Amino acid sequence: MTFPSLGLAQGTDTTPPDTEIGFIFTTFMFLVSGVLVFFMAAGFAMLEAGLVRGKNVTMQLTKNMALFSLAGLFYYLVGYTLMYPGDTWAIPGLLGSLSPALLEPVGLAGAAPDLSYASVGSDFFFQLMFCAATASIVSGALAERIRLWPFLAFVILLTAVIYPVQASWKWGGGFLDAAGFQDFAGSTVVHSVGGWAALTGAIILGPRLGKYKNGRVNPMPGSNLALATLGTFILWLGWFGFNGGSQLYMDTAAHVADIGRIFANTNLAASGGAVAALLLTQALYDKPDLTMILNGALAGLVSITAEPLAPTLGQAALIGGVGGGIVVLAVPLLDRLRIDDVVGAIPVHLCAGIWGTLAVPLTNDDAGLLTQLYGVAVVGGFVCTVSALAWLALRATIGLRVGTEAEERGLDMHELGMEAYPDFVRT
Amino acid sequence: MTFPSLGLAQGTDTTPPDTEIGFIFTTFMFLVSGVLVFFMAAGFAMLEAGLVRGKNVTMQLTKNMALFSLAGLFYYLVGYTLMYPGDTWAIPGLLGSLSPALLEPVGLAGAAPDLSYASVGSDFFFQLMFCAATASIVSGALAERIRLWPFLAFVILLTAVIYPVQASWKWGGGFLDAAGFQDFAGSTVVHSVGGWAALTGAIILGPRLGKYKNGRVNPMPGSNLALATLGTFILWLGWFGFNGGSQLYMDTAAHVADIGRIFANTNLAASGGAVAALLLTQALYDKPDLTMILNGALAGLVSITAEPLAPTLGQAALIGGVGGGIVVLAVPLLDRLRIDDVVGAIPVHLCAGIWGTLAVPLTNDDAGLLTQLYGVAVVGGFVCTVSALAWLALRATIGLRVGTEAEERGLDMHELGMEAYPDFVRT
Amino acid sequence: MTFPSLGLAQGTDTTPPDTEIGFIFTTFMFLVSGVLVFFMAAGFAMLEAGLVRGKNVTMQLTKNMALFSLAGLFYYLVGYTLMYPGDTWAIPGLLGSLSPALLEPVGLAGAAPDLSYASVGSDFFFQLMFCAATASIVSGALAERIRLWPFLAFVILLTAVIYPVQASWKWGGGFLDAAGFQDFAGSTVVHSVGGWAALTGAIILGPRLGKYKNGRVNPMPGSNLALATLGTFILWLGWFGFNGGSQLYMDTAAHVADIGRIFANTNLAASGGAVAALLLTQALYDKPDLTMILNGALAGLVSITAEPLAPTLGQAALIGGVGGGIVVLAVPLLDRLRIDDVVGAIPVHLCAGIWGTLAVPLTNDDAGLLTQLYGVAVVGGFVCTVSALAWLALRATIGLRVGTEAEERGLDMHELGMEAYPDFVRT
Repeated sequence: MTFPSLGLAQGTDTTPPDTEIGFIFTTFMFLVSGVLVFFMAAGFAMLEAGLVRGKNVTMQLTKNMALFSLAGLFYYLVGYTLMYPGDTWAIPGLLGSLSPALLEPVGLAGAAPDLSYASVGSDFFFQLMFCAATASIVSGALAERIRLWPFLAFVILLTAVIYPVQASWKWGGGFLDAAGFQDFAGSTVVHSVGGWAALTGAIILGPRLGKYKNGRVNPMPGSNLALATLGTFILWLGWFGFNGGSQLYMDTAAHVADIGRIFANTNLAASGGAVAALLLTQALYDKPDLTMILNGALAGLVSITAEPLAPTLGQAALIGGVGGGIVVLAVPLLDRLRIDDVVGAIPVHLCAGIWGTLAVPLTNDDAGLLTQLYGVAVVGGFVCTVSALAWLALRATIGLRVGTEAEERGLDMHELGMEAYPDFVRT
Repeated sequence: MTFPSLGLAQGTDTTPPDTEIGFIFTTFMFLVSGVLVFFMAAGFAMLEAGLVRGKNVTMQLTKNMALFSLAGLFYYLVGYTLMYPGDTWAIPGLLGSLSPALLEPVGLAGAAPDLSYASVGSDFFFQLMFCAATASIVSGALAERIRLWPFLAFVILLTAVIYPVQASWKWGGGFLDAAGFQDFAGSTVVHSVGGWAALTGAIILGPRLGKYKNGRVNPMPGSNLALATLGTFILWLGWFGFNGGSQLYMDTAAHVADIGRIFANTNLAASGGAVAALLLTQALYDKPDLTMILNGALAGLVSITAEPLAPTLGQAALIGGVGGGIVVLAVPLLDRLRIDDVVGAIPVHLCAGIWGTLAVPLTNDDAGLLTQLYGVAVVGGFVCTVSALAWLALRATIGLRVGTEAEERGLDMHELGMEAYPDFVRT
Repeated sequence: MTFPSLGLAQGTDTTPPDTEIGFIFTTFMFLVSGVLVFFMAAGFAMLEAGLVRGKNVTMQLTKNMALFSLAGLFYYLVGYTLMYPGDTWAIPGLLGSLSPALLEPVGLAGAAPDLSYASVGSDFFFQLMFCAATASIVSGALAERIRLWPFLAFVILLTAVIYPVQASWKWGGGFLDAAGFQDFAGSTVVHSVGGWAALTGAIILGPRLGKYKNGRVNPMPGSNLALATLGTFILWLGWFGFNGGSQLYMDTAAHVADIGRIFANTNLAASGGAVAALLLTQALYDKPDLTMILNGALAGLVSITAEPLAPTLGQAALIGGVGGGIVVLAVPLLDRLRIDDVVGAIPVHLCAGIWGTLAVPLTNDDAGLLTQLYGVAVVGGFVCTVSALAWLALRATIGLRVGTEAEERGLDMHELGMEAYPDFVRT
């Protein structure tokens, strides 16, 4: 046995130098990437806690801790096998099997693992974080007026069923994958899913009291922009794992070089989005707007997520830049439609997610605009339908929205009896 | 020479495909894990700064920066060789040698390293972070009334002597290890040690002024729950390194697959703890309690730390869930005993640490409940005795507690002359 | 083919066990390190947002998001090839080529990569983060009075030209490298560069209104020390990647063991710096000063950056300790010179950077004090000259400083119309 690693044409070699070593590399890469994506849960929590008003911060933090914890339990109980059906499909290409996730035995004892990929534990860990991200997206958009328990009920549905079922259509080898739909790390499969669920929720829930009054938009500024900026930086950090880990292999020189490309592209897309928002808000409003710059960076990241590998650095910056521009334009548009999205989750994750998905053919010859549109529409149709039914059912039964008094006084004291910053005098 | 990596029974193979490559893998794994555990210092600092009142935040931050820095110096000067005695034991199995830690030479020049494990530098780096964690646990419980310098004196004793000596009994190959006591990543060796030291300190120091008055518990809410939530997420993040790195090897497919199991189990235990606290506080108090949810997640993490590898995902969630429940019940119990633990460190690290240690026989056939109890008792007896003597000696000499005026006015202005949030009006 | 990994003298072996595996190791190490250094952007943002007054926080956050994003774009467009000229030098040893950075093709297809190092994408990603750090240093020193756009114009010059040109003299194989100047991870090449640019800027810009009045220094305490402490911990975290990644190779046991040494040394240098500042402020002012302790830790990190590998653990702690002491002495000295550095960036990054560079001969026999001084002076002369010209040109054209009203009212409302903490009553 010899190593094929010395020739000049090595780069294109797709045979790992050693199978078991390749398994260790890829598994560890999933774990490191998964830890980064895990941290996005903290990023979302800080971003959202920073962008809600001071009277609703404890509730927003509670929702984010709870949603991430529930996502873990329900992705384990139901979601993982629904998404990666393995040998048993309930309906091939459409719906997976139903059983809790099962890891390999300790020390792989008695197992006959396929060492050409990665350990099931690392894969489960990594994939769970994507599932949880969709729920984090929803929590921001519906902040400051949705009740805790119906929100958490929706989170369970989203992470146990909605996300895994549609994800299996692409990443589980289902019909969207067969149709040639391309979505490298989830502009559509992850971000638009959170975005669609947030959009239907925001419409059905209605805007915050006083947000739209006499035809005017009443600004309700976030209570802690330092926290929101920290959250954005944490999300940016996590995105290296999100996109880089989605390369799925790190067993060859070519694969790790691709991950390097992805990291560099992901970073430049975020830069492009932030700078676009900086310039555009200066041009439109004569003042740069920090919350737009934060959302611009995030939109740049969402935009590059559908294809972070193929673009050159310059293309990545441009794709991200367009995403940043979209956010600056979409935020007031949503307001005109009286759709109240507290943190800008819909512009960032849905609008930029669609843009990123449709931009794939710009850099990938084997991607078609119509197929990309088809994927966006199928996922959007499915998520909107199921989400709307769920939101309506929750509204009709246990109720979705806190009472007027709770909303005016703040959810923290009224619902939880606990302020986030009790030692400080609020305006 | 051939690679043993193609057969189906590969998983159980314990021979690394290559010794030097295994050394690189394991060393790098320690460094990545160690960085994650390092970040727990920031997590503790944020959690504690968020849970103390606004007038004591600067002091809490100062303590956390100082304790981590001192832990580094004294673990280097004394602790490391006390814990891993190498060739020279002062008292075999009981007490290690006394000399500063010594790394391999640069470039391993002239060294004859055993490439079957990891570099000494990476091991020192990783182990130091565990030692520092015990001190961080103590600082939270004793917040808002202990003076800086006696606290730091105790930190030096804890990190130079108390932690390393008892850790050597298990992890240095001492008598607890020989007795069959099992503690994978330190529910007892790390967390209960911090917990016992905190408990003796809290009893000897006494509660904060006004905390228990006329038989009632006076709530003293934390000043910044966003910070406390951030701290919890950072600790959760760091725990992947804490438990995963404790696998100690990443040189084979079996080892890295085990690390993957550990990551997934660790995450589900935290989820279980958080959800248990969420449900239990809703059931008991009719309102979810964010600080309990945060501590529930942490208790879930502490609970799974004694054995994060063997449980299935479902078992991990249950073990963590019980830990979360324990916290919800232990917090009011401590208050009934008038033991004032500002951040809930004793319920989280001591109570859940004991639970996690005793739970090992549930999943490990080779662990015995009596042996586990024996380990808990030996470590507890040792740490309580030495800690109590130290606290009493400090109280009798330089004094432990700030004066009444300082405590009422706040330690920040009185002791340090520096407020944490000087621009904001406090209630 | 055989592996050279079993002999006892293995440590000094510089041949990687396998070329392609070495490429994967080193590339992944750059990516992980780069992610850590990326996070330093968040660390700087939090440190600076915590140390400015409440009325200038949004502006400080905006500057930090914008500078990091612009650094990415301009290091891509100009800086990277200026710094690593590859085959084409405009002026050999002095000035690189001018073209946007170009990564390897996807999957290394058709490329003939040199697998003895790492992927271009990972190298670009890692190096970019160093470049961005210099700009973050400047933003802290000039806070609370510089206008946004001239600051960003300077950032572009700094990241596109100033940093890359002088970095090429050492790290691009230029004349400073040829002269034997040693700077492992950039005490001079990174930190002093930010420091010199900040110093010239602070002098030309002048102090904040009211900072120096009637011969007295008017303290202007930071608005959020929890945030500043978080920022410091994040910077400390990132420094493991900063120094560790600068080992540049992780393909052999010797290289990874060296990275382990670097991690351990880096940590102890920070500990030494923090403890030195703790003790010195207690001795000088009778009270420990948290902001000095934070800056002491950072100064320890800057000090060890010029040579984090060669020192023993004890030497690292001492080198860092001296750095921490320097900060405590340099902060009042700058005030006496009426140079207003809001966050202490000049003492930390410039003074400790010079100290660290000059300390290299203490541990490295092949380093000479005169050569080190020469390197410091050349870089300082270049950066000061170009920076001063740039600041003066900006002042003469678009203007550098906000108006008196803006400075008094705060940049947040006056320049951006957006407060960072709008819900809280300010003193």
